[in-house]
This record gives sequence, C-alpha cells and structure tokens, in this order.
Amino acid sequence: MDVGVWLVGARGSVATTVITGAAALRAGLAAPIGCVTEQPGFAEAGLPPIRGLVFGGHDIAGTPLPKRAEELALAGVVPARLPELVRQDLEEADAEIRPGVTPGPAGTQAEQARRLADDITGFRERRGLARVVVVHVASTEPPVPAHPAHGDLAALTEALERPGDVLPPSSLYAYAALRAGCAYVDFTPSTGVSLPALDELARAQGVPYAGRDAKTGETLVKTALAPMFADRALAVRSWSGTNLLGGGDGATLADPAAGESKKISKDRALPGILGHPVEGQTHIDHVSHLGDWKTAWDHITFEGFLGVRMTMQFTWQGCDSALAAPLVLDLVRLIARAHERGHAGAVPELGFFFKDPIGQEEHRLHAQYDLLRAWARTLA
Amino acid sequence: MDVGVWLVGARGSVATTVITGAAALRAGLAAPIGCVTEQPGFAEAGLPPIRGLVFGGHDIAGTPLPKRAEELALAGVVPARLPELVRQDLEEADAEIRPGVTPGPAGTQAEQARRLADDITGFRERRGLARVVVVHVASTEPPVPAHPAHGDLAALTEALERPGDVLPPSSLYAYAALRAGCAYVDFTPSTGVSLPALDELARAQGVPYAGRDAKTGETLVKTALAPMFADRALAVRSWSGTNLLGGGDGATLADPAAGESKKISKDRALPGILGHPVEGQTHIDHVSHLGDWKTAWDHITFEGFLGVRMTMQFTWQGCDSALAAPLVLDLVRLIARAHERGHAGAVPELGFFFKDPIGQEEHRLHAQYDLLRAWARTLA
Amino acid sequence: MDVGVWLVGARGSVATTVITGAAALRAGLAAPIGCVTEQPGFAEAGLPPIRGLVFGGHDIAGTPLPKRAEELALAGVVPARLPELVRQDLEEADAEIRPGVTPGPAGTQAEQARRLADDITGFRERRGLARVVVVHVASTEPPVPAHPAHGDLAALTEALERPGDVLPPSSLYAYAALRAGCAYVDFTPSTGVSLPALDELARAQGVPYAGRDAKTGETLVKTALAPMFADRALAVRSWSGTNLLGGGDGATLADPAAGESKKISKDRALPGILGHPVEGQTHIDHVSHLGDWKTAWDHITFEGFLGVRMTMQFTWQGCDSALAAPLVLDLVRLIARAHERGHAGAVPELGFFFKDPIGQEEHRLHAQYDLLRAWARTLA
Amino acid sequence: MDVGVWLVGARGSVATTVITGAAALRAGLAAPIGCVTEQPGFAEAGLPPIRGLVFGGHDIAGTPLPKRAEELALAGVVPARLPELVRQDLEEADAEIRPGVTPGPAGTQAEQARRLADDITGFRERRGLARVVVVHVASTEPPVPAHPAHGDLAALTEALERPGDVLPPSSLYAYAALRAGCAYVDFTPSTGVSLPALDELARAQGVPYAGRDAKTGETLVKTALAPMFADRALAVRSWSGTNLLGGGDGATLADPAAGESKKISKDRALPGILGHPVEGQTHIDHVSHLGDWKTAWDHITFEGFLGVRMTMQFTWQGCDSALAAPLVLDLVRLIARAHERGHAGAVPELGFFFKDPIGQEEHRLHAQYDLLRAWARTLA
Repeated sequence: MDVGVWLVGARGSVATTVITGAAALRAGLAAPIGCVTEQPGFAEAGLPPIRGLVFGGHDIAGTPLPKRAEELALAGVVPARLPELVRQDLEEADAEIRPGVTPGPAGTQAEQARRLADDITGFRERRGLARVVVVHVASTEPPVPAHPAHGDLAALTEALERPGDVLPPSSLYAYAALRAGCAYVDFTPSTGVSLPALDELARAQGVPYAGRDAKTGETLVKTALAPMFADRALAVRSWSGTNLLGGGDGATLADPAAGESKKISKDRALPGILGHPVEGQTHIDHVSHLGDWKTAWDHITFEGFLGVRMTMQFTWQGCDSALAAPLVLDLVRLIARAHERGHAGAVPELGFFFKDPIGQEEHRLHAQYDLLRAWARTLA
Repeated sequence: MDVGVWLVGARGSVATTVITGAAALRAGLAAPIGCVTEQPGFAEAGLPPIRGLVFGGHDIAGTPLPKRAEELALAGVVPARLPELVRQDLEEADAEIRPGVTPGPAGTQAEQARRLADDITGFRERRGLARVVVVHVASTEPPVPAHPAHGDLAALTEALERPGDVLPPSSLYAYAALRAGCAYVDFTPSTGVSLPALDELARAQGVPYAGRDAKTGETLVKTALAPMFADRALAVRSWSGTNLLGGGDGATLADPAAGESKKISKDRALPGILGHPVEGQTHIDHVSHLGDWKTAWDHITFEGFLGVRMTMQFTWQGCDSALAAPLVLDLVRLIARAHERGHAGAVPELGFFFKDPIGQEEHRLHAQYDLLRAWARTLA
Repeated sequence: MDVGVWLVGARGSVATTVITGAAALRAGLAAPIGCVTEQPGFAEAGLPPIRGLVFGGHDIAGTPLPKRAEELALAGVVPARLPELVRQDLEEADAEIRPGVTPGPAGTQAEQARRLADDITGFRERRGLARVVVVHVASTEPPVPAHPAHGDLAALTEALERPGDVLPPSSLYAYAALRAGCAYVDFTPSTGVSLPALDELARAQGVPYAGRDAKTGETLVKTALAPMFADRALAVRSWSGTNLLGGGDGATLADPAAGESKKISKDRALPGILGHPVEGQTHIDHVSHLGDWKTAWDHITFEGFLGVRMTMQFTWQGCDSALAAPLVLDLVRLIARAHERGHAGAVPELGFFFKDPIGQEEHRLHAQYDLLRAWARTLA
Repeated sequence: MDVGVWLVGARGSVATTVITGAAALRAGLAAPIGCVTEQPGFAEAGLPPIRGLVFGGHDIAGTPLPKRAEELALAGVVPARLPELVRQDLEEADAEIRPGVTPGPAGTQAEQARRLADDITGFRERRGLARVVVVHVASTEPPVPAHPAHGDLAALTEALERPGDVLPPSSLYAYAALRAGCAYVDFTPSTGVSLPALDELARAQGVPYAGRDAKTGETLVKTALAPMFADRALAVRSWSGTNLLGGGDGATLADPAAGESKKISKDRALPGILGHPVEGQTHIDHVSHLGDWKTAWDHITFEGFLGVRMTMQFTWQGCDSALAAPLVLDLVRLIARAHERGHAGAVPELGFFFKDPIGQEEHRLHAQYDLLRAWARTLA
C-alpha cells in the first residue's frame, strides 16, 4: 500500500517542486540529487519508495499545479520541459487539493479542524493509502502569544469549540492532521505542532511528528562550519549574516513579524555549538529581483593564538525550493516508516533537517547526521 | 621530568610564534586560544603541560629569536609588547639552536645525521629531559624522485655512508631524530618521515611519528564543508581555490616545484570525502604585501534537486603562524604522551591536524576529531 | 602665517589620527598616502602646506592625545612607535583642546556659542594664525526636527538668546565657527552647517563651508562602480549593503536614530547616478570585535542583454580613521585657500569628498574629481 | 541602404546571441539593455539603426544558428521561447554563413584571402548593402611570433603568395576584410588587425578598424575601480585575479598558449591607470560546469594613511555572451558610421569597449567614456 503526502501550501513553490520532482524521479527523468535517504546508508531502513508517494493538500491559492510548474520552469527552478512531461501527475495531485483555512467568520476552529481532517481522511480512503504524512510548507507566520489552552489538550479541545481563534493556522493544520491519525512535519518556523497540547495529542493518537524550519542554506552552512571553530579551539567573536531572498518567501519574511520567527529559529544554532553567545546580527531582506534564489553572506571574526584576529566570509547562492524539496521527500519517507514502526510523539533524530529541531539540543550538522544514521538503522 | 621540543626551522615564523606563545602561556600572559589539547576533552589524557616544554632546534638562519619575535610583533603576529616580556625565554631557546644542514661538500649524509642526532641528544641530556619531540617546521621542499634505498632501512643505512645525497634535508632530519630516539612530527608537505625505510626505523626504535602538512586554512575549511555536501546528497561539480600568501612561506610556495608538494597535499581531501573526482584548480600565489597573512578564496559549484546549479564561495583571511603554532604544541603534547605510553610507528589518530594524514584515509574534519578524542581517552 | 585646524571631537579617533599623521608627515616619518592634495595636480593651487598646520579643538572627553594615540597604535591604526616619536606635537595640540558643549542647564545657546567662538578666536590670536578651519569630526547625531528659526538668520539669532535648545550641538559648533569668521567643514552626517540660516551667516561673514559626511568606504566604491553600470547601459535591479563597524562610530551608528542620519546620507548617491530608484536595503551593524576596522559587503543584481540576470559583490575592509584622516587634511588645505581667495558660502566643488555633497547633484566619483581638479586650478 | 555585419565565428555563442538579440530588438521583443549606443547621448550621431543590420559570416562549425540559439536558450543565455519567435531571422543569417579557413593544404594564404574577401563582397552585393562591418568573434589564438612581412604591406602581399602560413587565421580574416573594403573590429585578443602591414592596408583602403579584446567582466570592473584608488592617493600594493570560465571560451583559454594572449591583454590596464607596476597574478581556469557563465574574483591590497593595510575583494558573476553581444552591435554601429564619414585606420576613441585598446593609452573607463561621447558628437 502506498503512502500519501498531504502538503499544507500545496500550490506553493516548495510543494510544486516536490510534486514535480517526485514525478520526474518516478519517470526516470532525473537522478535523486539532494535526497538524503537515497544514499547507501538508508537502503536497509525499509522506507517507502518515492515512486509510491501520492500527493494532495490544502491551499488557499487557486492557480493549478501544471501552471505553477510552468512558472517554476521559466524561473529555472525545474528543467524547462519537465512540467509538460509530468503533466498528468501534476493534474492528479491538483485534483486532490482542497481549500485551506482563511481568517474570518467561518465557524469555530473546532469546526474548521473537522473539515480539514475530513479532507485528509477522505484522501486516504479514496486513494487506498496505508498512511498519510502531513507536511506544512505554507508561508511563515509571526510568533504567537502564549495562550493557556496551548499547554493542555483538554483545555485546547474545549477552547476550540468556542468562537474566536485559539490557534494560529499552522497549529490548526497540525491539530487536524493529528486528529486524522497522520504523522506531521513542520517545515517552517511557524508555531505548528510545537505546543504541549499538540504533543499530548500526538502521543495519544500514536503518531510521530518532527520539526521545525528546514535547514537549507545559511544555517546549514553555519552548523557545518561552527564545529570547526569549536574543535580547533578558535574563539569566534562575531558572526553576522545578511540573507537576500526573492520570491514569495522573501516577501513574507520581509515583514518584521514573520521575519522574527525565522530569525529566532536561525539564531539558535550558534550558541548551542560554540557554548557561548556571539555578537552579530542576522538580516533578512526581500530582493524581488532574485526570484526563487536566495543569497546569504556571513562574516565571522575569530581569534587565534595569542589573540590574533582573523576573518572568514562565505556567500551561499541557492535555489530555495530546490534545496527544500528533496528534504520534504526524505522527511515523508522517514516519518512514515517511524509511524509504521509505532513511534509516537516527537522524533528528535530528524533534527538533521531542521534549524530548530524539536526535542534535540544537538545543532552540529555532522553529529545530527550520525544520530540520523543510527536511528535509521533501528527502523530496519 | 620535562619534555623537550626540537624545532627544525627553529628561527622561522612558526617556530618563533610557538616559543613566544608557550612562554606567554607559562607566564599567564595569554589564554590558550587555538590549543585543541587545552579543551576539556583532553584533561584526562595525561599530556605533558605546556609550561614544562623546553625548546631548542636546528636552523640555517642566524637572526636570534628575540629579534625574530620583535619582527613578528611589528607584523601583528604576536602582541606588541610580548617579545620584551618573554625575552629571557627567547634567549634561552636561542642558546639551544644549532646549525642546520646545508647542501654542499660536508661529508656523507651519515656523518651529517650523526651530527644532527648528537645535537638533539646533547640537548636532552644537558636539560635533563624525559624525552624530546622533533618537529619539522622548515620551508617546504619540492617532491623528490624515488630512490631504491628509500624502501628499506638496511639499504638506506648503507647508502647514507656513501658520498652523495640519498635523502632530501627533511628526511635527513627525520632520520637523525629517529636515530636519537625521538618522536617526530612532519608539519610540512616535505618528504620527511614518509618513507618506508624511516617507518621501519621508527618501529625499530620504538618511537611514534605523525604527519603531514598541518591543516590550518583552506583545507581545514574544505574538510569541514565537504561533508555537508556529501551528507545532503548535493552533487559538487567544481571546487576551485586561490591561495594568496605573503611571507617566506609564500615565496617558497611560489616556486612551482615546492608549490607542487603543497598542491598534491591540498588536493587529497576532496575526492576522499566526496567519493569522486571534482573539477577545479588550486592556485598558490605569492603576494608579499600580505606579510604573514594568507587569504584563500574557494568557489564551489554544485547541483541540487533536478539538477539546479548553485554556488558557494568562501574567503578565509588568517595569520599563518598563529594558526600553526598552537597545533605544534598540541602535536608535541600528544605524541610525547604516545611515546611515553609505548606507541611506535605512525599515529594515524593525529590525522585531525594534517592535510595529508599518514596512515589515515579519513579526511572529514569532524570524523578525524572523533577519532582523536577516542584515542586521547586511551592515553589516560 | 600658518593655518589653524580646530577639530570638534578633537580627542576622537579621526582627530587623533589627523594630528598624529600631520606630525609624522612634518617629521618626514611617513609618506602622504591618501592625501589627494599632495598629488601633482594640486601643486599649483597655492594650498597651505601640511607642515604649517596648527591643531586645537573642542571635546567633551578628557583622555589626553598622547594616550589616545597610544591606543590607536595598539589597535594598528597608526604605526607602533609613532606616538612616542611625535609626542611633543601631540602634547602641544592637547594643550589647545577646550571643553565641548554638553546637554543640560548651561545658559542659553547664544552664551554657549559665544564661549565656543571665544575658544577659537583665542586659539587664532594666541598662535598668530592667518586663519582657522573648523572641522566637525564628532559622533553622528540623529536627524533633527525642523524648527522655524533654522530658516532665517535673524530668527535664529533671536531664538538662541532664549532658554532651550534651538540647534543640535553640531549646528551650534558650526554657528560659533562662522561667528568666529572661520571656514567650516561638516565631516559627518549630522545637521551641522546645513541650515538656511547658517548659509546666510556664512555668506554674511564671508567664509566658505563644505560638507557633508565624508565618503570613505562603501559609498566611495558605490560612486566609482555605479557609473560603470550606467555607461554600459546595464540595468541595476537591486543594490543591498551590510556595513559592520567596530569602535565608537559603530556603537553610535548602531543606535537606530543616529544610524538613520547615516543611511539617508548613504542612500542618496545611487538613484542620482542611475537615474532611477533601486531595490535594496542598507544595514549598519555594530560589531565591537572589529575595533577601528569596518567591513562593507555589497550585493548588486543587474540585467544585461535580453534580460539575463547577473550579480556583482564586493567586500571592503578598511580602517575608518585611516581613510578619514587624510581627507580632513585635504579639506582643510582646500577650504583655507578658498577662504583666502574670498570664497563665501557653500563650496560644491568639494563634493568629491562627501557622501551627501552640499550644493552639488553630481555623485559620480570621477566626475566629482574632474570638478575638483578644475576648481583647484582656479585657486592658483 | 542597410549595413551588413559579417561575423567571423558566426555560429559561436557571441555571434548567435548577437543575431538572436538583434532580431528580438527588431521585433520589439526585448529592450536594448546593455546597448551603449541606444542611450540618449548617441541619438544625434547618425548611427545606422539596429533594425537595419543584416547578418552573415564565416565559421568552421556546421551547427545551424536556430539549433545554436536553442542551446543558448536551454543554458539561460537567451529567453526560453525567443529562438522560436525569431526563427526566420536565424535561418536567413544562417544562409549567409560561409566556411571559415582551417589549417592544412589549401593553397596559398593569398588564395584563401581572396576567397574570404569574395564571400564578403558577395554578401554585400547580394543583399544590396551600403557597407559591411567585419567583426572577429572566433576563439582566441595564442600569441604569434613576429614575422618580417608583418611590418610592411608590400612584403606581406608578396609573402602571402608563397606557400606556408605568414598570418595567423585572425589576421588573415582581417586582411581579407580590409581588401574587401570593410571596416574591421577585433573583439578578441588574437593578433588580428594589429600588425603594421594591416594598418597600412586599412589606411590605403580608406577603412577604419578597432580593437582589441572586448572589456566585459573583470577588466571592466578593474578599469572602473582602479581610478578610485588613484584619485584618492591610496597606494595599491597587489591586485590578484582568478577567472573561472565555462563553455568553449573557457576551454580555449585553459590552453596556456591562448590564455597567455588573454592575460597579456588583461594585465595592461592596471599599470596604465596606477602609474606603477602592481604585484599579483591573473589566473584563467576552465570550469566546464559554469556553462556560459564566468566568475571573476579579484583581491586587492592597498595602503592608506600612515601605511595602514586594507583590502578590497569583488566577485563578478556574468554571462559572457550576454555581456559581449550588445557591444558587438555598438561597435558595428559606431564604426559603420565612422566609415561613412571617411575615417581610415585605427579608431582609438572606441577604446571604451576594449581591454587593450589599439591606439589609445587611456584605460580609465570613465575617461574612455568621455572620449567616446565626445567623438560620437563629431559623427553627427
């Protein structure tokens, strides 16, 4: 039986790249570059194959997937002729997209959650799926103020039945996914599943979840480089970063409130690895002319022997959706297998994929990789 | 009993920084930044303390150490007033420097080696040292042609008694050190100890050795970054590097023959980590205006999901002697302890410190660090 | 007769470097690197020689100049032994420093201005100077709200006699300088002399003035590079900049209000040269570990033929005080000569030195240089 | 009457981009980005319009232009659908391409030159053109050894009638073009027209010529930036450059002999602008994965006031053909008009477009632009 992938933000750039790419891999039109779980170390883990994944999702946007894929081809995110070659897959997935939730007078959040969960269970049944993994790849939300009902499942369940918004959309999707018995992945820095009440729900439902904020660029490099300074006893004194992002993600994050979520997430790794706070700011700027590309420039000052000051800089020029998409496939395969094997609650061993790993203090990329590999062996 | 450090190239920038810095640490004038073995993980390994190290060495240059330290202070490599504050230590070390070997009619290499070994044993006895570690920090030599006597100790011993040069200077120093019963470290890419006949000698003498070519800049970063691409299944397509070096090291390496030794050493890591050859050249330019500083610019192209092309660049601006000096102290402490514990022959676990680790295929920095830490625990 | 240089912020890094450097040039201890007016094209302009400049100034700080120069030597801004060699010059200048104005109950601003002006005229008379140029090199102030008295000299004169602050400190210094019959230079983005009432005063007094915000780093490069894009008809689509500054200047500009003055000043050049607004933000971060150094990273996207997207990046790593100091000497020499030749009011031809040139719309560096050279010929 | 453009290397990337782009401009499908002569300052110069240009040329390659344009579209050099939209123009130009000269037994060079000239005059007559401009955009050749016949037209004419090669291919094309009465442009660093005998021929024939080696990337930036250092009296001490080139051009220049031509050309500008030689090497590496893109990294060290060392770096990431193509159109328009106005021999005022301008010592980009603008006014 196949595994379903339910994407929240199913018509966004990341989701479109995921669906287009999975179709290309299935058709033998592309090699699985960027797919961690296609490497030798994961062959024995019993992961569901990419070719068996079935796609659907929620979105508030209406542009059909074949059209979105064409746009990405023009932008150079997917090969020029690929959308045409996998058109049928795109249409099939598009037929499984249901309207997302929007703010405004639409009943209680409990009612909304029931509708969302019904969409997902309908998909699972209609397509005869063994299980469905829900992945949140929609726009980043601002941080939300704490609410008493966030800490306790009973209180939350009750509060949702009353008028007014208790949960931000990302958490409402997570709530619905868990209610529907689905594994859940937070791919963005939005609040999502990271509330005690939702952890309680996941464990009650016997479903695993993971997050948050996929590590695809500046932070990826940071967590590969910072251990070098630490292991060599070089004293990092400042680490400054500027991120230039085009596209919709750039526009969202240029909003100071949403950008704040991202910055909090990005700034966690460094003190964790170096063992002390480090001077320096992180900027996120929207530069629309960059399109789907992003550029990060990081500037690091450090001291060596006898206090001599030295400097390192790096520039990372990547395509955001192309960096993110294979990680979605990896996470789906891994967490679906974990679900199958009976894991419930947070899966800290998936921290390798995230800027702000739920349940894991380890930020060093290579150590996260070792943890992931070891855990994958237990799935066999 | 104290441990001696015999530096081949004892009046060079690296050696002067080592001796000045050790004196500063002893006097409490500086923190041990850059000293790997001063980190918590090495506290139980029974390493000889830095404050007990006693310095001497060979050099063909005559400028006294206090003068050399003043020059380094003017260049910003050591703090402005430090040479004055540790003048006595510098003078003591300078009194233990003996003339190195120079090409020309000076008897057989066997005679030269005996004189070199006598210098070292004289130092050990005069200063009442438990043991002496010899570290080669002299200028890089060109690669040498193979010679039949390099492969066998008996043949080598015989050949050295005949007129003519069988060994390059770096290997003659290594031969003398081993004959004198000293542990040996190859800090440069010169041939040094890396000949089968010398390995045989080290094992016969019961002394450990390690090398070669300390990893202090571009290659250090390379071996921290390349695993990131490998673990994320990103396909590195090219890796190009330009190294701008001032100072004497820059001038030496600007000579194509010596530069060749360095390039061979630098180019080993990448295919080892990525598992396939990678397009791209490595340049080493002499830029005298950089003084003791070096700048490396690396440009990497890689493919992500569906073949999308992306780019990473980094610039590393470091002070060569300041990066090298603490590693000399680390290596001395570790190999002295290994000697004490009876290790003989190559110590592959010291690969963390080298571009071209003798006896070790592992080039990933973090994995080398894990190996080093595990080995250090066995020294306790 | 000699020319006096009265520095507002006389114990700051820029002023200390100016005074130390002028002494070094006088004593033949340094070449005039960075001094535009020491180049051949200015030999005929009749400028006062650097060796004849006499220094004094206002400051609210009390650390004596010889001590400040030692600090700069430790930081590598001036050569290590220079402060000692020019100690007498530093002490002489320090003896001519008078307390600056501080906020709080100190009488009316008119009274303060009279005291400031008396300090300057006392200096001129005591030292028998032909004329004095006042240069504002104190910390950047936030932008100030408009005040009706700023637009008219009579109204201003009257308002200053009343309690309360009508002028920010930078403008009060400018007012006092003009009242004292001195030429005036605004070296920072603070309001300073750039008020209609002060322009009226300068013309009434027959003294020249120039400003503002010396162009020493990122903006200098911007105004050299942007004409390349314009002349080649390449369409610049975004220009993003991050400035990392250590030292006191960095701390001041990290304050959003003061940083705003600087950003406004920095952002003027680009639309002026390209003829259209350009996407992109400019960040100014304080990174204390950089000390007196600053690093700017600029990232430019542009379109070429048929809309192909291309990118340029640059990194500028400079020593702020060393970049600023020779320009202070240049401006003093040029405006002193202009004063001698009877120029009154703004001198737009000095725009070459400024980010936000008063009275000049031209921002292209080379065109500004041509204007400066042509004007210098008229001074002969 | 229209103007013809005869491209030597007519099926190369630059030529294909020129022809595709001119068709796009003619059809109103693109704006003239990168076209210097479409800017306001050139409106009065009486230049032939781009829409009236007619294309043909020589090439030794056989791939038809529509196919070449498709390849460039896939590589992102021209917009994805453009080749299809201008297919008719591409086919028309392709029909005017004749075989180039190849080494080997093909009669004397005089015979070859007559055939080449006949191809061009045939084109001119067949298409009823007022005049034809020949532009050399074929692969870079190695420098050629001097030959006595290069210095004198009579000697050259005689030598060409004998068996054996007197001229490199680039010069043979130039010879043929001049014999055919055509203006000539050397777009590459090959020897081409830059021989005294060919200058004599051009003047005898009354045709203008210009060259050489179009300034499109690293050197363009160099000649915009170096004047900044000179005008500010900052002492440039080193300037190092690494150029990574993909595509056919990269492969050609990776050959040390051809790369030498390019380096000689690239290294001329700096000493010319700064007035003194500067330390530093220029590398040209072939990185096939870059495709039609090139990346240049330049590292500059300079001294400021009191000898303080500072650094600037830049990275230029451009599409070679897209940078070159509009300059071909500019040069054709300008030299065609010069031909019409009776100019004969070298046109030094076109130096703005070249790394190694024939007949011009001025390398500063802005000064070259001023010369170009002034000269264009004389064409009116």
